[in-house]
Amino acid sequence: MSALLDTADALHDQMLALGRAARAASVSLAAAPGPDKDRALRAAAAAIRANKAAIQAANDADLANAGDLSGPLRERLTLNDERIEAMAKGLEDIADFPDPIGGVLADWTRPNGLNIQRVRVPLGVIGIIYESRPNVTADAGGLCLKSGNAAILRGGSESVQSSRAIAACLAEGLRAAGLPEDAIQLVPTTDRAAVGHMLRMREFIDVIIPRGGKSLIQRIADESRVPVIKHLDGNCHVYVHAGADLDKARKVVLNAKMRRTSICGAAETLLVDRAIADTALAPLVTDLLNAGCAVRGDAATQAVDPRVTPVDAADWDTEYLDAIIACGVVDGVDAAIDHINRHGSHHTDSIVTEDAAAAERFLQRIDSGIVLWNASTQFADGGQFGMGAEIGISTDKFHARGPVGAEQLTSYKYVVRGNGQTRP
Amino acid sequence: MSALLDTADALHDQMLALGRAARAASVSLAAAPGPDKDRALRAAAAAIRANKAAIQAANDADLANAGDLSGPLRERLTLNDERIEAMAKGLEDIADFPDPIGGVLADWTRPNGLNIQRVRVPLGVIGIIYESRPNVTADAGGLCLKSGNAAILRGGSESVQSSRAIAACLAEGLRAAGLPEDAIQLVPTTDRAAVGHMLRMREFIDVIIPRGGKSLIQRIADESRVPVIKHLDGNCHVYVHAGADLDKARKVVLNAKMRRTSICGAAETLLVDRAIADTALAPLVTDLLNAGCAVRGDAATQAVDPRVTPVDAADWDTEYLDAIIACGVVDGVDAAIDHINRHGSHHTDSIVTEDAAAAERFLQRIDSGIVLWNASTQFADGGQFGMGAEIGISTDKFHARGPVGAEQLTSYKYVVRGNGQTRP
Repeated sequence: MSALLDTADALHDQMLALGRAARAASVSLAAAPGPDKDRALRAAAAAIRANKAAIQAANDADLANAGDLSGPLRERLTLNDERIEAMAKGLEDIADFPDPIGGVLADWTRPNGLNIQRVRVPLGVIGIIYESRPNVTADAGGLCLKSGNAAILRGGSESVQSSRAIAACLAEGLRAAGLPEDAIQLVPTTDRAAVGHMLRMREFIDVIIPRGGKSLIQRIADESRVPVIKHLDGNCHVYVHAGADLDKARKVVLNAKMRRTSICGAAETLLVDRAIADTALAPLVTDLLNAGCAVRGDAATQAVDPRVTPVDAADWDTEYLDAIIACGVVDGVDAAIDHINRHGSHHTDSIVTEDAAAAERFLQRIDSGIVLWNASTQFADGGQFGMGAEIGISTDKFHARGPVGAEQLTSYKYVVRGNGQTRP
Repeated sequence: MSALLDTADALHDQMLALGRAARAASVSLAAAPGPDKDRALRAAAAAIRANKAAIQAANDADLANAGDLSGPLRERLTLNDERIEAMAKGLEDIADFPDPIGGVLADWTRPNGLNIQRVRVPLGVIGIIYESRPNVTADAGGLCLKSGNAAILRGGSESVQSSRAIAACLAEGLRAAGLPEDAIQLVPTTDRAAVGHMLRMREFIDVIIPRGGKSLIQRIADESRVPVIKHLDGNCHVYVHAGADLDKARKVVLNAKMRRTSICGAAETLLVDRAIADTALAPLVTDLLNAGCAVRGDAATQAVDPRVTPVDAADWDTEYLDAIIACGVVDGVDAAIDHINRHGSHHTDSIVTEDAAAAERFLQRIDSGIVLWNASTQFADGGQFGMGAEIGISTDKFHARGPVGAEQLTSYKYVVRGNGQTRP
């Protein structure tokens, strides 16, 4: 019992020390010039390339320890030349983007002569909690650094050696640029209780970003006392409106569902307007079936093809992340909006139509981070938006919505310059 | 026991019904044209003026019931002609401001022809939890309406009749403009457990804003599962740097502390640079003492005047909201920055100096929502910033920092317009 208590106390002390070091580093980092941060990112990329063999050996050790890991988890844990190079290149890409910090977002002068500027500043310290993908260590660490935030990274225990090897390269980059090494810290212990500490360290962590499966993210959102930026679910829709160009609709639907089925922007539900169901439903559904997609449909959809199986109530709320789609007929744009706002996950939804009024109604009323007109939901991606690297897509509305890049990891302050003004 | 359970269940059902109604109203409100919202605000103002007698009678009843209320609480609870008119005028002022919703924050077109806009949208449903001031009902309800958010207002039980009378006027305004009355709902019960329900209603409330004393706000921040925008503390500083113009410093310090001592932007600590302590400390401290301010000082400050009492460690962390100031000598701008970042509340801090380099260092490194150069901390106010009505000043960095007006009660979405683009 006393040994257990000692362990708990030791972990508590260790986490507090980590938090204090991060807070101290965040002060230097907030004032660090952009070129210093970019130099650190490029030096870290060089270190990753130079230490490729050591990173691979660490990953091999993780894989060897992970004997009973399932296929997809093992796949995510695995590093190879290509993935290691992608991490290095990713850091260089982040370095190439403009510095988000210090930018003046607004500037005005009051009648009394006070000049007021709204200036972008870092959030402070960001805690990243992630599962098996060791590349998150580099990607998330790099984005936090670019945005002037200190990072506390907590990777999955199965990827601990890989993450340590990568974090060592990030530390090398920080050192090379004269920035504090504590700017990017990896939680050294694999004790699961460390996560619980992070979620309560409001004085040392300004925001928590979980990366991983829905159950991890839901648990963190439920338990955290620190604000969370999260991507919970990507239950994305394509609605083919009565005014749709059928050729466009076929291209968009097939791409939205089948280009890659495992990404959060993949469509999971197809809604077809009743007004064109007679002509549009068959080609849309047949395209999907022929591409190897399982279609779960309502009565009208089932009538199209015997391969369609019945949709049930839970399907409308399901993110398959697989070659499966729910499909149904709706009565007009308002019914589509209502269905999507009710069953969707406020992530990404698209309307296909040539009718501008219907499109604008959809774009305004769908309560999602990304709404598209005549384009595939698979564009839901910071890179595709031209925003650079992203740490994920937020399905929240608070603070950050949609793709979360370096700019979304910032706050602002008001800088007021006067010449002795007092308030009457 | 069974009766208790029934009561708890009834409250639970009542709160869920409130949440559902707010969510439904928020959908209409998000799409409501600006002129409709402004018409509702003006009609509500007219209703407040027309029902002045009824509001006053309700307030008299609240005051009669609040027999044992302490002086300041009773003062806050009290309405009179002037305060009722101020509520009406406040709603009209909110109406006069431009609509924050629908504005395009950014607009760009990708090489593939996709046009991307970042558009301002409401957050959804805002829960306001406040104590005795019944005017918050009008102020907060009006700001939520302007920003297209539905509001669930939970006032103090001591002001319930006043708040009901005011809420009836807001409902009249909504009706007059054809907007859903559920857009602004007052929690009908005075059962304290209702607050606990609000803090867990993540599916129906997007953000909680507590207004009141520090202990209320701290408790809500600790317990809430819904994101919180809060103003915890206004422990504001004035630092008189070695390069200060003494006349400016005397004016700024006296105004920052004594103009009004009860507001969050009032200075609570004066730091004077050791380099000028010999000449500056005496006039600065004497001004304060002569204006009726108690000064708690370090040894150097005590040496100035026998009326100065010793400062203790807790003073540096205290928001007095009274005619009291902590005063001490520091060694240079970095020591001042370190003191303020350590003891301050990240609210509002000012440097007085003619040395631009020292000022810019202070403005960059002080981690507060508002940083000033040669100006009084009492300018920490949305109205003084020209931002219009505010619901408070956020001491958080997440989502909203500094004055929280209609614009800070919004989120954004990405609207993407294409012509059939698919992702390669």
